[in-house]
Amino acid sequence: MLRFGILGAGRIGNVHARAIAASGRANVGYIADAMPEAAQGLADAVGAKTASVQEVVTASDVDAILIATPTDTHADLIEDAAKAGKAILCEKPVSLSVERIEQCLQVVENAGVPLMIGFHRRYDPNFAFLEKRLRAGEIGDPEIITITCRDPSAPPVSYIERSGGLYRDMMIHDFDMARFLLGDEEPVIVHALGGVMTDPEIGKAGDIDTASVQMQTASGKIVVITNSRRATYGHDQRIEVHGSKGLLRAANIHNTTVELANQNGWTEDAIPFSFIERYQAAYTAEIHKFLDFLDKGEAPRASGYDGLMAQKLAEAASESLKTGQAVKVI
Amino acid sequence: MLRFGILGAGRIGNVHARAIAASGRANVGYIADAMPEAAQGLADAVGAKTASVQEVVTASDVDAILIATPTDTHADLIEDAAKAGKAILCEKPVSLSVERIEQCLQVVENAGVPLMIGFHRRYDPNFAFLEKRLRAGEIGDPEIITITCRDPSAPPVSYIERSGGLYRDMMIHDFDMARFLLGDEEPVIVHALGGVMTDPEIGKAGDIDTASVQMQTASGKIVVITNSRRATYGHDQRIEVHGSKGLLRAANIHNTTVELANQNGWTEDAIPFSFIERYQAAYTAEIHKFLDFLDKGEAPRASGYDGLMAQKLAEAASESLKTGQAVKVI
Amino acid sequence: MLRFGILGAGRIGNVHARAIAASGRANVGYIADAMPEAAQGLADAVGAKTASVQEVVTASDVDAILIATPTDTHADLIEDAAKAGKAILCEKPVSLSVERIEQCLQVVENAGVPLMIGFHRRYDPNFAFLEKRLRAGEIGDPEIITITCRDPSAPPVSYIERSGGLYRDMMIHDFDMARFLLGDEEPVIVHALGGVMTDPEIGKAGDIDTASVQMQTASGKIVVITNSRRATYGHDQRIEVHGSKGLLRAANIHNTTVELANQNGWTEDAIPFSFIERYQAAYTAEIHKFLDFLDKGEAPRASGYDGLMAQKLAEAASESLKTGQAVKVI
Amino acid sequence: MLRFGILGAGRIGNVHARAIAASGRANVGYIADAMPEAAQGLADAVGAKTASVQEVVTASDVDAILIATPTDTHADLIEDAAKAGKAILCEKPVSLSVERIEQCLQVVENAGVPLMIGFHRRYDPNFAFLEKRLRAGEIGDPEIITITCRDPSAPPVSYIERSGGLYRDMMIHDFDMARFLLGDEEPVIVHALGGVMTDPEIGKAGDIDTASVQMQTASGKIVVITNSRRATYGHDQRIEVHGSKGLLRAANIHNTTVELANQNGWTEDAIPFSFIERYQAAYTAEIHKFLDFLDKGEAPRASGYDGLMAQKLAEAASESLKTGQAVKVI
Repeated sequence: MLRFGILGAGRIGNVHARAIAASGRANVGYIADAMPEAAQGLADAVGAKTASVQEVVTASDVDAILIATPTDTHADLIEDAAKAGKAILCEKPVSLSVERIEQCLQVVENAGVPLMIGFHRRYDPNFAFLEKRLRAGEIGDPEIITITCRDPSAPPVSYIERSGGLYRDMMIHDFDMARFLLGDEEPVIVHALGGVMTDPEIGKAGDIDTASVQMQTASGKIVVITNSRRATYGHDQRIEVHGSKGLLRAANIHNTTVELANQNGWTEDAIPFSFIERYQAAYTAEIHKFLDFLDKGEAPRASGYDGLMAQKLAEAASESLKTGQAVKVI
Repeated sequence: MLRFGILGAGRIGNVHARAIAASGRANVGYIADAMPEAAQGLADAVGAKTASVQEVVTASDVDAILIATPTDTHADLIEDAAKAGKAILCEKPVSLSVERIEQCLQVVENAGVPLMIGFHRRYDPNFAFLEKRLRAGEIGDPEIITITCRDPSAPPVSYIERSGGLYRDMMIHDFDMARFLLGDEEPVIVHALGGVMTDPEIGKAGDIDTASVQMQTASGKIVVITNSRRATYGHDQRIEVHGSKGLLRAANIHNTTVELANQNGWTEDAIPFSFIERYQAAYTAEIHKFLDFLDKGEAPRASGYDGLMAQKLAEAASESLKTGQAVKVI
Repeated sequence: MLRFGILGAGRIGNVHARAIAASGRANVGYIADAMPEAAQGLADAVGAKTASVQEVVTASDVDAILIATPTDTHADLIEDAAKAGKAILCEKPVSLSVERIEQCLQVVENAGVPLMIGFHRRYDPNFAFLEKRLRAGEIGDPEIITITCRDPSAPPVSYIERSGGLYRDMMIHDFDMARFLLGDEEPVIVHALGGVMTDPEIGKAGDIDTASVQMQTASGKIVVITNSRRATYGHDQRIEVHGSKGLLRAANIHNTTVELANQNGWTEDAIPFSFIERYQAAYTAEIHKFLDFLDKGEAPRASGYDGLMAQKLAEAASESLKTGQAVKVI
Repeated sequence: MLRFGILGAGRIGNVHARAIAASGRANVGYIADAMPEAAQGLADAVGAKTASVQEVVTASDVDAILIATPTDTHADLIEDAAKAGKAILCEKPVSLSVERIEQCLQVVENAGVPLMIGFHRRYDPNFAFLEKRLRAGEIGDPEIITITCRDPSAPPVSYIERSGGLYRDMMIHDFDMARFLLGDEEPVIVHALGGVMTDPEIGKAGDIDTASVQMQTASGKIVVITNSRRATYGHDQRIEVHGSKGLLRAANIHNTTVELANQNGWTEDAIPFSFIERYQAAYTAEIHKFLDFLDKGEAPRASGYDGLMAQKLAEAASESLKTGQAVKVI
C-alpha cells in the first residue's frame, strides 16, 4: 500500500489525511506540523507517527508527500520532495509568484516525479459530471461560462494580508474551473472589477471582498466570474455553461431535501456554510484520482501546468484591478 | 356573435361573465341575480342588461345560458334552459342527488341541447397538458394517480351545512380529475376516511374537513386523493401519475418566480390563496372550450355524464365514511 | 375614457393596442401604419379607425400617442406628439444617438407632456416583485447584480444591420434593468466583451451575437450582464441580486408546471420561446402603469431620462468593445 | 472498542460491516455466512475473522450481534444472541408472524439486552430532519401524512414467494415511517388496495406489485402510502406531512445537481436506482445511533416494539387486501 507523508496538520491537512486513511488504497505514515499537538492529534487519528518536515520528505518508507502547509512554503517543499523522488499532491497555489512557479515546475520536471495540484473543485461530483457531459458534446461548444463563488464569511484580516489578494487566494479556484470547462482554449483577455463591501478592514489591508472578472478566449468564448467574501446564505458554488446546443448548470447542494411551506412561501433547506462540508465528496474523490494517477498512470486532473496557468490569470486580474484596464494574458 | 345569459352574479358568475366578455368570440346579453345590485354591477361591467331568471332563460336573443346560481337550483334551471332550446354551461354539480341528475340529463337529451359541466380544472393549462401527454403515451399506462387538493380555509359553516359534505362539495373536483386522467376506466371500489381537524364547528354541522379516498378500477389502477379545508400555505393543487414508463406530475403555480436566500434557507414565493386567481387561465380556457363545443362541434371536455359519474363517486365516498367500509360503485 | 392613437401596427404595436383595448380604462381611437392592411387589421381588432401618422398625432380626440414604429422615427414622432400636446408612450429606444435623445427630451420638457419609455421588463411581475423586495431592504444593499438574457434566435440580418448593434438593440434592456435594480447609483465604469458564435453573417454585418458586460458604480457595486442571440432552450430571462443580507433572484417562467420523470432524469417543461408570450403580463401591466401615470400622477417606472441613461451605457459598451478597454460613463 | 459479530455477508451485511469498520467507534470481530467465500471476502475487507453462526453468537470477545441473514432466521438468532447476553441490531423484520415477534421480544426482555431494529429510513438525514422539525412544532400537529415509495424493479419471483407479500416485505418500511412521523398515535384503521401491474409472474406467486394503503388514527390523522415494484426513474422515496401550521416534505435526492436545458425542457439529473446508494448516509447514521444506544444509553430510534407494530400494520393491510374491507388494528 502506498504510504503518505503529510506536511501540515491544519484544517485541510486533516481533511486529506483522513481521506487517505479511509481510502482503503493508501495509508498515512507521518505527519509534520510546526505545532506538535496538532501533528500528534492527527497522527493518532489516522494511525501515523509525527516527524519533522525534513524527516517526512526524506523518509525511505514514504511514497508520496501531501503538502498542506502555509502558501509561502509550497514551492520550496515541492522542490524538496521532488528531489527526494516523492510523488506530490500540493494544495493550491504552488506560489503567489508566477516566476517562482515556473522555476519549481522545472525542478519537478527534472526530477521526473508525479505532481498534482489540489484544485478540489475539479473532483466535485457535480462539477465533474457537468464537465464530462460538456466534453461529450451535450450542449455543443461552450460559449458563455458563468461561475458564481461566494463564501459565508471572510478569513481573518491577518490571513488576508498574506494571501496575495482575493484573485490569487479565492478566485483562483474559479480561474481553474474556467480553464477546466473551456477545455482546449485559454483566456487571452482579462478584465477585473473589485470593491470593499463587507468589511473596511479588508480594504485597509489592501484587498477587496467583492469582485468580478470577465475573460475571453481567442475564438470569442466568454467567462464571467463573481466572488464575494460574505454570503449570509452559505457557501454559494455554482457553474453554468451556455453552449451552442443548450445549457448545462450545476446548482448548489442543499443540506437536506426537506422543504417547509407556510404563509411565507416554500423554503428549501440551507446550503452548507463550511467549504469542507460542501466539498467532502470532492476531497475524497481527489485522493482517489491522485492514487489513480500514481497507480494507473491516469493523467492528473490538475497538473502543475494548471496551477501555473490559474496563477497567470490571477496575476492578470490583479493587474487589471490596479490599472482599471483589460489585460492580455500570454 | 353568440350571446349568453348569465344566471347568478356571485363570485363565479363574475369570473365567467368577464371571461365571456373578454373572449372576443361571444358576449353577455343578460344577467339575473336574486340581488339586484349584484346583477346590475356585473351587467355594467360586461355591457349587459339585467333581467329575471325566467326572462333570461326564455329570451329570444340569448343562445347560451351560464348557470352559476346556488347548487340546489341547478337541475331545475338546466331543465328550463333545455326546454327553451338553449346551450348550457352549468357549474358543478348538477345536483347533490344522483337520481335528480339522471332525470335532468334525460330532459337535456330529449331537448337535444348542448350541455357542459363546469369542472374548471380540466381546462387548467397544467393539468390539461399533463393529461395530453399521458394520453400520448409518454409514461405508458397510468397505474397510481395521486391528487392533492387543499384549500386555504373553509367556507362559512352556513355554506357547509347545505353543501352535501366535503366529498360532494370539494372532493368532487378530484373525483372528476381522477376520471379525466384514468381515461377509459372507471373506479369500481371507493374507500373513504375523514376527520375534523381544523374547526369543531364543521363537525357539529355534520361534515369533515380533512379527508382521503382511495379508489381502484377493475384492472387494478389506483387513485389516491387527499383533501384539507385548511392549508396555511395557500391553494395546494397537485396531481401526479405514476405509469408503466415514467411519472408525470403537475406542481403548484407560485405567484412569481422570485426566490430569497438567507440564513433561513431558500424561500420560493407563495402560491395563490384564491382559487379564482389560481385558476384564472382555466376559467378563460373553459369558456373557449365551451365555444369550441358550440361552434366547432368539439366534444365538451366535461359532459353531463361526467357530472353524473363524479357525483356517484362522491356518493360512494360519503357512504364509505358512514359505514367505515369500502363501497362498490356500479 | 382616455383615447390612444397607435403609431405602428407591427408585432409590438399589436400587443400594446390589444392591451389598451382590454384594459377597461382606455380605448384605441386610431391606428397608423405604412402598410394599410396592417393598420386596418389591427383597427378592426380593437374597434378603431385608420389614419395617417400626421392625422393621428394631431387628432383632437386623441389623448395619448403610443409609438411602435421603426426606431429611426421615434425621436421625430415624440417631438411631433409633444408639440401636439399628447401624452406619449414610446417603445425603446428614443434614438440610437445620445445627442438626439437629449434634444428630443428637451422638446418634451418644453411641451410639458407626459412621456414614458417602453422598457417592458420593469413591469414584469417577477422582476417588479424582486425590485420591490430589494427596495424594502430584504437583502440589505445590492452588491452584485447578475443579469442573464438570451434570445432563442437572432432577428434577420437586415434588421441587425440597422439595429445599432447588440448593446443598443438587445442589451439595452439589461442596462435598464441594472439601473432599475441599482436604485440611486449609476454605473460609472463599463467593460464589454463580444464575439460572433451563432452566425457568421452577423459578424459580416458588423455586429456580435454573444456578449458580456461588467459595470461598476462609484461605491463599488458590480453588475454583470451576459447576452446571446441564440438559446436552444428558449427566451432565457433571469436576474439575481446578491446583497449584504441575502440573495434575491427571479428565475425563468416555464410554460407549465408539468414535469416528466423517466430514466433520463426529471424534465421540467420548456420556457417560452417568444418574448411576447414571456412578457404578456408585463405588457398588460405596462399599459396600466402608463394610465396610472396619466390618471393618478404616479411617476412613470421608466422615464425619458431612463431611456437616455440606458442609451449612454449602450454607447459605452459599444466603445469598450471597439477599443478593448474599460470606458468611463459620465 | 466495541466488537461486532456479523451474521450474514450478503448485500446488507456488507453495508453494515463496512459502516462499522469505518465508524471509528467499533470494529468487526467475526463474520458468519452460509457461503464461506462471502464470509471470507467480507472478513478480509473489514479486518475480521470468519466463524460459524453459533461461534459468533457465543464468542466471549463479541459485544454486539448484527443480524443480516434471511428473514426466517431472524427471530431464532435474536433469541440466541439475547440468551448469550449480546446487544442486537437486527434487520427488519423480526418475523413475518406477529405472534413469533411477541415471543421473541419476551425473550429479549427477559435477557435484558439492548435490541434495535434496522429500519434504516429513520436514520436518513432528510427524513430524520423532517421528523425533528415536525416534533419541534414547525407545522403544528400532523394531519395528513403521504408516503411515496417506489422501487426501480422487483426482486426475483423466488424471493417474492417467501417474502410474506408486498405489505410485509416492502411497505413495512412505510408503515414504520408513518409511525415514526405520527409520534404518539397509532393507526387504528387500515384499508389496502393492490394490483398486479408490472409482471404477471408476481401475481402467479400470489403477490401484488402496485399498492396503496390508507390508515387513520383515533383522533382522525390520516396516512396514505403508495408503493410500486417498478419505477423507470429510480428509487422514488418521498414523504410529506400536512400539518395545522404548514407542510413539511422531503423530496428525492438526485445523483448530482447538474441540469440540462435544451429544446426538450430542463432536465434534472436522475435519482439513484440502488437503495444502497440512496440510503448510504442512512446506513452510516444507523450504526452510529446503535452505538449511541449502547454507549450513551440513548433510546434506539427503532425498538423491538416498533418492529412489532409495523408488522401488525402489514398484517392488517394483508387482511384488508384479502377481504376487500377496512381492518381495525388493536
